[in-house]
Amino acid sequence: MGAIEFIEGGVTAPAGFRAAGVHAGFRANPNRKDAALVVSDVEGTAAAGTFTCNVFCAAPVKLSRSVAQGGRARAVILNSGNANAATGKPGDQVARESQALTAAALGIDPAEVFVASTGVIGVQLPLEPYRSGLPLLLGALDSSPQAAADAAQAIMTTDTVPKECAVRFEADGTAYRIGGMSKGSGMIMPNMATMLAVLTTDAAVEPAALKTALKAAVDASFNKITVDSDTSTNDSCFCLANGAAGGPVLQPGTPAFETFCLALRQLCEALARKMAADGEGATKLVTVTVSGAASEEDADKAARTVANSPLVKTAIAGHDCNWGRIAAALGRSGASFRQEDVDIDIMGMPVMRGGLPCGFDEDEALRRFEEPEITIDAALGAGEHSTRMWTCDFTHDYITINGDYRT
Amino acid sequence: MGAIEFIEGGVTAPAGFRAAGVHAGFRANPNRKDAALVVSDVEGTAAAGTFTCNVFCAAPVKLSRSVAQGGRARAVILNSGNANAATGKPGDQVARESQALTAAALGIDPAEVFVASTGVIGVQLPLEPYRSGLPLLLGALDSSPQAAADAAQAIMTTDTVPKECAVRFEADGTAYRIGGMSKGSGMIMPNMATMLAVLTTDAAVEPAALKTALKAAVDASFNKITVDSDTSTNDSCFCLANGAAGGPVLQPGTPAFETFCLALRQLCEALARKMAADGEGATKLVTVTVSGAASEEDADKAARTVANSPLVKTAIAGHDCNWGRIAAALGRSGASFRQEDVDIDIMGMPVMRGGLPCGFDEDEALRRFEEPEITIDAALGAGEHSTRMWTCDFTHDYITINGDYRT
Repeated sequence: MGAIEFIEGGVTAPAGFRAAGVHAGFRANPNRKDAALVVSDVEGTAAAGTFTCNVFCAAPVKLSRSVAQGGRARAVILNSGNANAATGKPGDQVARESQALTAAALGIDPAEVFVASTGVIGVQLPLEPYRSGLPLLLGALDSSPQAAADAAQAIMTTDTVPKECAVRFEADGTAYRIGGMSKGSGMIMPNMATMLAVLTTDAAVEPAALKTALKAAVDASFNKITVDSDTSTNDSCFCLANGAAGGPVLQPGTPAFETFCLALRQLCEALARKMAADGEGATKLVTVTVSGAASEEDADKAARTVANSPLVKTAIAGHDCNWGRIAAALGRSGASFRQEDVDIDIMGMPVMRGGLPCGFDEDEALRRFEEPEITIDAALGAGEHSTRMWTCDFTHDYITINGDYRT
Repeated sequence: MGAIEFIEGGVTAPAGFRAAGVHAGFRANPNRKDAALVVSDVEGTAAAGTFTCNVFCAAPVKLSRSVAQGGRARAVILNSGNANAATGKPGDQVARESQALTAAALGIDPAEVFVASTGVIGVQLPLEPYRSGLPLLLGALDSSPQAAADAAQAIMTTDTVPKECAVRFEADGTAYRIGGMSKGSGMIMPNMATMLAVLTTDAAVEPAALKTALKAAVDASFNKITVDSDTSTNDSCFCLANGAAGGPVLQPGTPAFETFCLALRQLCEALARKMAADGEGATKLVTVTVSGAASEEDADKAARTVANSPLVKTAIAGHDCNWGRIAAALGRSGASFRQEDVDIDIMGMPVMRGGLPCGFDEDEALRRFEEPEITIDAALGAGEHSTRMWTCDFTHDYITINGDYRT
């Protein structure tokens, strides 16, 4: 089985995919791209999706869920600037019409078009930008890296950088690629914005297997950038598999399928890390690893509580090697363990052994906190389960972005 | 049944209690009180306690749990400046010795002395301040309001104001009083500090009934100032009932006992509100009321998620009447409801009806946000259960207090 390697590019890296990103008019600023389209050129492209479980889910989420149930899709139409959430029946109607307009422009079945929106909520989404923007998108549709980059840029809201990735792997003599783009600023559910991701692959995978692979990859990546990220009103992750690489259908249970799953997971992890690192006001990416937990659930609870703790996150912003706040978060997480069995390392330095603080070199700690990624490792000594979560630090800029007097 | 009225004073408001607060040397600053003692003059005083469920619980918590199991206590010795947490077996030994020293000074059984500590963790607590401080405490012990105020001041850490309250009620011709003091800055689990509370009453209540009454009062008050407040390493709430008012033993099931329970709850609520309002960096007390929930648990989940949301709390700091963030928090809380049934009011102004935003006067909203207490009311339309939680806003000062570069 060939190695999995990261390559340049995004959603157009796999064969048989085109993308575009343009200004269609969802935003007032004409210099800001606000509409993206991703298209598979292959009929019968397999599709899967994962969606927010927020009760206040947006109109496009409801519609795209039904597309995912069909297991086939050829296109994803996305806009930024307006989330089409808390918009009632008129919002549902707009979502359906935007789906129909996109399908008509591409000459495909509306049931094969995913729809996604991100931006302000509680404001009706206009249809006009679809009417004027779809011809622009069709004109720009291209399989180039630039076209993928334009699409990644068009879905940004409070993101400070576009986020795209691609990987390449070989299986049974065929070379496959998976590409992806995403937006969202991680755990902090910025400004009612959303996590959106579009993943493309030229591997041939049946819809049911694709759904399984996507769910596993999302659970280990986007769903590990703390609790808020998977629960906004619009969160959606779409995956299209068109088989254009020419290999056989990858069957669950085979080494080739396992390699595909691993490659998909690594791609999603890379995108998830980019999102956590781009959290609102963030200066650090924070990776929290919990091992020695009594169960998978305990590992998740413990890592999630540490990663969500405002006290831990403010300490990191202040370059404070504060083991006490980490211990307190573990202790209140609900995970089962004994305090005398706990070891904690920060940036590879032992700070707690057997539940007691151990002396460490404060100057060395300050030096290590200069790194862009901060690692926290906690071993609970209660079992064999482990997990990893990603978050960011918590700074004055977060308060400024989210709390300063409205203008 | 007489009305319950708030009166001046704190833990010495009930008959038969004395208190003191002095500088004993737990802190370096000689101008800062750091030791408090509360004593009941009545033998056989009934006692109850509630404690943190954090796995990393402090040495005094473990010791005081065993005192509470005995159901009788005459004294509470408290210090600030050092939490005696994450201190291992030496910490347990110091807690036991401080209990013994206090008992010897008062001439009572060590098993009748509650011990509590708050302050930095991971540092061994010295015994010397107990040896030098206990004579000072005994000399200062008094039933005056000033003595109670000194005790309330001695347990402060990051609190900006001391917190004490007292209530008076009548039952079957006898006048009773309940007094209390507490420290802690609410939900945000400031700097590993702690929620501590001492409640005193001159009502006669058996230990088992006192335990029941205390648990109900704490669940409806201190445990409603969001999830972090009841899960630090040292959280403890003690209640002593000495019967010095002269009435009969208040028996569960009688109107007199119900009035006692209600008075105890009102006292705890008043202290809890003071703690939330004094949250680190807080400029507003925030009261979140959820009604129409399908169950008690759903009401709690929904209110807790809103009260814990950094986005809601930063919006309040910015005087932003942001219904969208409240709706999103409700939606991800795990409570069962339909979005089209939800109504939300902020400061008494309808901002959402039937799951859709309703227009409101932005200028009027800004005017109402000048008030020191912000109210959020959410009706889920899914049942008959309701609850109330208290929190504070989330400001730059929180980041400054908890995150600025260590000095």
